[in-house]
Amino acid sequence: MFELGVVYRNIKRADRAAADGLATFGSATVHEAMGRVGLMKPYMRPIYPGVQISGTAVTVLLQPGDNWMLHVVAEQIQAGDIVVAACTADNTDGFFGDLLATSFKARGARGLVIDAGCRDVKTLQEMGFPVWSRAISSKGTVKSTLGSVNIPVVCAGALVHPGDVVVADDDGVVIVPAAMAQKTIDAASAREANEGEKRAKLASGVLGLDMYKMREPLEKAGLRYID
Amino acid sequence: MFELGVVYRNIKRADRAAADGLATFGSATVHEAMGRVGLMKPYMRPIYPGVQISGTAVTVLLQPGDNWMLHVVAEQIQAGDIVVAACTADNTDGFFGDLLATSFKARGARGLVIDAGCRDVKTLQEMGFPVWSRAISSKGTVKSTLGSVNIPVVCAGALVHPGDVVVADDDGVVIVPAAMAQKTIDAASAREANEGEKRAKLASGVLGLDMYKMREPLEKAGLRYID
Amino acid sequence: MFELGVVYRNIKRADRAAADGLATFGSATVHEAMGRVGLMKPYMRPIYPGVQISGTAVTVLLQPGDNWMLHVVAEQIQAGDIVVAACTADNTDGFFGDLLATSFKARGARGLVIDAGCRDVKTLQEMGFPVWSRAISSKGTVKSTLGSVNIPVVCAGALVHPGDVVVADDDGVVIVPAAMAQKTIDAASAREANEGEKRAKLASGVLGLDMYKMREPLEKAGLRYID
Amino acid sequence: MFELGVVYRNIKRADRAAADGLATFGSATVHEAMGRVGLMKPYMRPIYPGVQISGTAVTVLLQPGDNWMLHVVAEQIQAGDIVVAACTADNTDGFFGDLLATSFKARGARGLVIDAGCRDVKTLQEMGFPVWSRAISSKGTVKSTLGSVNIPVVCAGALVHPGDVVVADDDGVVIVPAAMAQKTIDAASAREANEGEKRAKLASGVLGLDMYKMREPLEKAGLRYID
Amino acid sequence: MFELGVVYRNIKRADRAAADGLATFGSATVHEAMGRVGLMKPYMRPIYPGVQISGTAVTVLLQPGDNWMLHVVAEQIQAGDIVVAACTADNTDGFFGDLLATSFKARGARGLVIDAGCRDVKTLQEMGFPVWSRAISSKGTVKSTLGSVNIPVVCAGALVHPGDVVVADDDGVVIVPAAMAQKTIDAASAREANEGEKRAKLASGVLGLDMYKMREPLEKAGLRYID
Amino acid sequence: MFELGVVYRNIKRADRAAADGLATFGSATVHEAMGRVGLMKPYMRPIYPGVQISGTAVTVLLQPGDNWMLHVVAEQIQAGDIVVAACTADNTDGFFGDLLATSFKARGARGLVIDAGCRDVKTLQEMGFPVWSRAISSKGTVKSTLGSVNIPVVCAGALVHPGDVVVADDDGVVIVPAAMAQKTIDAASAREANEGEKRAKLASGVLGLDMYKMREPLEKAGLRYID
Repeated sequence: MFELGVVYRNIKRADRAAADGLATFGSATVHEAMGRVGLMKPYMRPIYPGVQISGTAVTVLLQPGDNWMLHVVAEQIQAGDIVVAACTADNTDGFFGDLLATSFKARGARGLVIDAGCRDVKTLQEMGFPVWSRAISSKGTVKSTLGSVNIPVVCAGALVHPGDVVVADDDGVVIVPAAMAQKTIDAASAREANEGEKRAKLASGVLGLDMYKMREPLEKAGLRYID
Repeated sequence: MFELGVVYRNIKRADRAAADGLATFGSATVHEAMGRVGLMKPYMRPIYPGVQISGTAVTVLLQPGDNWMLHVVAEQIQAGDIVVAACTADNTDGFFGDLLATSFKARGARGLVIDAGCRDVKTLQEMGFPVWSRAISSKGTVKSTLGSVNIPVVCAGALVHPGDVVVADDDGVVIVPAAMAQKTIDAASAREANEGEKRAKLASGVLGLDMYKMREPLEKAGLRYID
Repeated sequence: MFELGVVYRNIKRADRAAADGLATFGSATVHEAMGRVGLMKPYMRPIYPGVQISGTAVTVLLQPGDNWMLHVVAEQIQAGDIVVAACTADNTDGFFGDLLATSFKARGARGLVIDAGCRDVKTLQEMGFPVWSRAISSKGTVKSTLGSVNIPVVCAGALVHPGDVVVADDDGVVIVPAAMAQKTIDAASAREANEGEKRAKLASGVLGLDMYKMREPLEKAGLRYID
Repeated sequence: MFELGVVYRNIKRADRAAADGLATFGSATVHEAMGRVGLMKPYMRPIYPGVQISGTAVTVLLQPGDNWMLHVVAEQIQAGDIVVAACTADNTDGFFGDLLATSFKARGARGLVIDAGCRDVKTLQEMGFPVWSRAISSKGTVKSTLGSVNIPVVCAGALVHPGDVVVADDDGVVIVPAAMAQKTIDAASAREANEGEKRAKLASGVLGLDMYKMREPLEKAGLRYID
Repeated sequence: MFELGVVYRNIKRADRAAADGLATFGSATVHEAMGRVGLMKPYMRPIYPGVQISGTAVTVLLQPGDNWMLHVVAEQIQAGDIVVAACTADNTDGFFGDLLATSFKARGARGLVIDAGCRDVKTLQEMGFPVWSRAISSKGTVKSTLGSVNIPVVCAGALVHPGDVVVADDDGVVIVPAAMAQKTIDAASAREANEGEKRAKLASGVLGLDMYKMREPLEKAGLRYID
Repeated sequence: MFELGVVYRNIKRADRAAADGLATFGSATVHEAMGRVGLMKPYMRPIYPGVQISGTAVTVLLQPGDNWMLHVVAEQIQAGDIVVAACTADNTDGFFGDLLATSFKARGARGLVIDAGCRDVKTLQEMGFPVWSRAISSKGTVKSTLGSVNIPVVCAGALVHPGDVVVADDDGVVIVPAAMAQKTIDAASAREANEGEKRAKLASGVLGLDMYKMREPLEKAGLRYID
């Protein structure tokens, strides 16, 4: 694990329908449905707002200041994938721009999640190729040191196996292990089932204190009201 | 002060007209009108741009990773309030989302200022419920430890008493002590009175050096011009 | 060098046509065309997106919390300049707002790059005066300590001589030494000449691995494919 | 509150015996004894290790890059005081060095807590004058803008009133409101009373799980053991 | 994986001799011997210098501001273990102090690596119980929410499985998968075998340029010497 | 300037006596003597305390994660030099360890200032080879991309020309341009001349307010005393 210089060509992707279906719930609901685990750190931000996607992870481990492996991973992309790029050190260089995005898109990628920097953000938005990154930077990179493709990686604090489901939106990025994809859809659906009713109650002025029956536990915990 | 587990129900809010009137000036002018004090640190950013509001502070002290007290504070909101949420430790979890926003809005809150994270940002923008936060994060929170409501809190470096006026816009967040609200409006108005004239002069090419009569003090301070 | 309390009035600006022409390439291409040097650190971000400019640098060195020298530099601005403001210490105060922007614009400035904070961002966007800064903050500043104008400065990690070309867009800010402006345009043009062809190939599904003939060097470096 | 340009000469210091007595407990125990409130943020670090002190707060509000008010506060120091210095903006300049330390020490100060930078750290250690700061920096400061002395300040996220008790050691800095000093000593003493017994039990291999009777609540919370 | 509320009691620890033997090499050599992978981020620092240890990982996943699971993990410690504590969110609270250290030590733990804060650092040094942490803080924690024990965790960017080998010293912390422990010892030994000879040559003035035969590849890469 | 792939072999070093003499003053006094300019940012810290040195700068520009040029710069070191290493991107990898230190020391280097990471810190302290760095990290680096030697570099925000004087101690690092070395010694000497007298006065209880005659300017600035 975490070996350098290897490309795994055959990965087991999560069930396609489940991978696609998770997009509708968004990262917050999916994270809750999984039992509050699986999130990347909040420094990972979309380079432009308003996109909500899901897809299967193709992973790549990069070296600082070196984007060689992004060309290697391009070949492993299949339609419906999202590339997840980790780096062996904290680095904000602009590893990815419009040419690579053109290539990734042509291969069927839905987006990129990169724990490093991205550039050509204006063009990427015009192309409609979404990226979540830790930085935006014009800084160019070299192509001289090997990383790996489709090994498990730690990206922004989250463990990602190739084939896992990536759910990304304006709130952040969450990873669903491939084997849990369908179960997570079910849990997310159940969670959202009565949200409309809750929202209507709250909108009418009912308090969460009452709707969730919190008054007793709060009192038990010692909460005192002072007039 | 800073006691945990208490909710003060009766707070003295700043004069309503003054609290409402401060919105028109924006945070920079209000901060200057107060004598350059009262600002939160600049890491507090709006989750979407273009909003400029003011209102009376209802305060809440949260525990890291625990949003229980946001349900408690909801009951204390009155029309025209802005909730100011501090946390006992630096934390970026997503304490606040669309359901709580629905409840806060129904109670009459104009917005939320939270020294922690927020989620559901796309929905919050669609709802028109503005939030200023230190982070955006899908990370969910628990409901198990008490904080307090309507005690004085330190939020993003600013001391906030319940009832103070909060002024928030794209430039940041400033707190006006309730007793200074009207005086601050007066000072802000005076400050803006001749801004139009100044702007016209500067637009016509007059230099600040001349308009503000800075040449003499600069020379006195030792400024040398070299050709 | 780096002396305080001086204003150089006669600076040698880069060739106007070259300085103007660099805008079309953007910061990433210009940085590559220069041999991957000259970039400011990525914490310098535009206060609003979508602007891509170039111009000649007029430099100013500020003291923390003190914007006096911004009034001094205003007088040295000529049409086509971009003001580059460094600070003797890390500081996020709001040194610059709409009044100074009105003055800078009247003098012919195309924008401001400031290694400190900026305020009135909504008005600046309405005015169409672009700023790249390390922070947005309402915090006001004093006018009491001298810095310098048109000395070489280090701004966000980049060395800037007065008269150098500044290229700034959504990806960041790059500095082109005045003497290299034309040569950089040539290199940038050459670089972009066959980008269209490359993009078309990549869009059609050709891999960078093949287009850039990377397979052999990757194999030589030891890359192994595992099925 | 938070007015600039004022020096309060008569402050009510916490009871001397209580202020002195809190040193023996250290910041962690005192913080617990107060109900887990009152701490400064953990970026406040001692410039050299091994010191554990307490004393009464004399406060000062500084402007960024300007240490003028440190000379003003010197005059207000009495034996047994600890100076607490806040700043109107985040700033790491070296506001304080060996000359000011000589003066503070001559006035009876026990140390300095400063939400900014400090210099001459080697000499300060030789002198035995402890400082807690956010940074160490050679950067000099000017003397030109007023702050205030003995107003309430927010220092590293903690509210400090003049006369409050400051407890500082290798773990951090905690503020005890003057009126709570004796009560906090009592609570801290009670807390430490049976620590020796607890420590002996734990050292003998008894588990906290048993000593604190945590097994049942853990099981109730749903903890599952898997072999 | 990453499930909450579970404690795995039976973990497969790395070979004891290999786990113990890795300490002599230190984190830098071990990291190189593994092929430059496995490191935690450099924000993980020892709370006191001069310790170099290795041992088998017992893992624990904590919730922000909640150290309940540290009591749970204590029971799972065996002689020769090092506890590795991850947290579901970035948090600097003081989760660990001298009482827990007494318990851990009594159970045979050699140290703690915690991606959060630690307190009682002076006492811990006196006890000789080493800790690597992201912060030092007096901030106390609660005991109310479940995490897990002996699941794989991501700690400071490194993936850690229970039973892996932890190597920690003044340079940082590296994780060696249990299955690679012996192989890594071999590689590290080979690496150090000729270090003495290299050091002697360098000490005598021989250049790395010559010793490593770098002159030709540098020239080939285009390096130019200018007199 | 800032060209990559070049090594300048003939640099003009500052006058040896002046370069050596500046060590006695330390970074804070030298920075003041230069007129408060020339400092590196305070994130540059010594890897062990208690060293105060000066010497002539030999500069090197590194690529992120690549320490190849440190071997190239070794050949250019002369007795009395201090190596100043900048990096084209923010990077904390461990570029430098005991083998390179052995080589540098054999060539006559007095120390290293590196805007990146360092490792083997325990051995470096035992060897007595001081380093100022932005980080400590075991992370290894590759040797594949060219930087440059003895070009002007920006290191931690300071411009450094080869041959400049570097003054480094526990307070930080300051750069004195070669041509200003003697003048700076004179100014520093003058500054220290009457420090003894000042210190004695302050130690006897005389206030800076009186010694520096600040009472009148403070009153003029509007300072009010309130009893």
